Amino acid sequence: MINVVVVTHGDFGEALIRAAEMIVGPQENVRAVALLPEESPSGFGEKLDAAMEDWAGQDTLLLIDLFGGTPCNVSSRRVLEPNVEVVTGMNMAMLIEALTSRDGTTLSELVVQVAEAGQKAVVNLKPLLCKK
Amino acid sequence: MINVVVVTHGDFGEALIRAAEMIVGPQENVRAVALLPEESPSGFGEKLDAAMEDWAGQDTLLLIDLFGGTPCNVSSRRVLEPNVEVVTGMNMAMLIEALTSRDGTTLSELVVQVAEAGQKAVVNLKPLLCKK
Repeated sequence: MINVVVVTHGDFGEALIRAAEMIVGPQENVRAVALLPEESPSGFGEKLDAAMEDWAGQDTLLLIDLFGGTPCNVSSRRVLEPNVEVVTGMNMAMLIEALTSRDGTTLSELVVQVAEAGQKAVVNLKPLLCKK
Repeated sequence: MINVVVVTHGDFGEALIRAAEMIVGPQENVRAVALLPEESPSGFGEKLDAAMEDWAGQDTLLLIDLFGGTPCNVSSRRVLEPNVEVVTGMNMAMLIEALTSRDGTTLSELVVQVAEAGQKAVVNLKPLLCKK
């Protein structure tokens, strides 16, 4: 099973994982790491290292809230590791795709699936539902 | 100023707004509505109605966590109102785009900008940073 780390500004990552679990049920091997207000990049980096320490060498997908900013910048160095993939712009569809597709696929396939799921999840409802 | 409602499974919407405020500063006219576990669609609908009641007739953008599911289904009837737009697949970039672009644009322009921002925010970092 591929590990998943949800990396965010503020602490919405834990609540986002619980929200996803409302749909897909309780999950193992998924963790949240939060950049708290006033926290330094180095302090945040230490938290990320600690969260991933016992997964060293294991396939791990990092879902980042935002492209740019401290969570992304600190996490981006992880892409140098062969067993780590990182994707930004996380939404709930991406987290659900990661949690439900992480068995029976490779990490490099999963990150592509997750990115596609995230982009397809963005739907403007008025043109869809109110076709003229 | 266009009003923004963040509609989610679980209670991560409030925390997501606070996370966005870490970047764009304190915001007015933005609210979160949460579908809690075991809550019925009708109970959730009443909460959404209450959250939007004093904005009746005002331009309001609903950002929904997921396409499909109760928050989306209950919110989707709102697209029948001329002053409401609804977009799913919310991520942090979409919320920030909504909060920072909602002055000086129309609601129909804003929803398109927000959807584009959300899709562009999804970036697979390894191919980007480790070009061969």
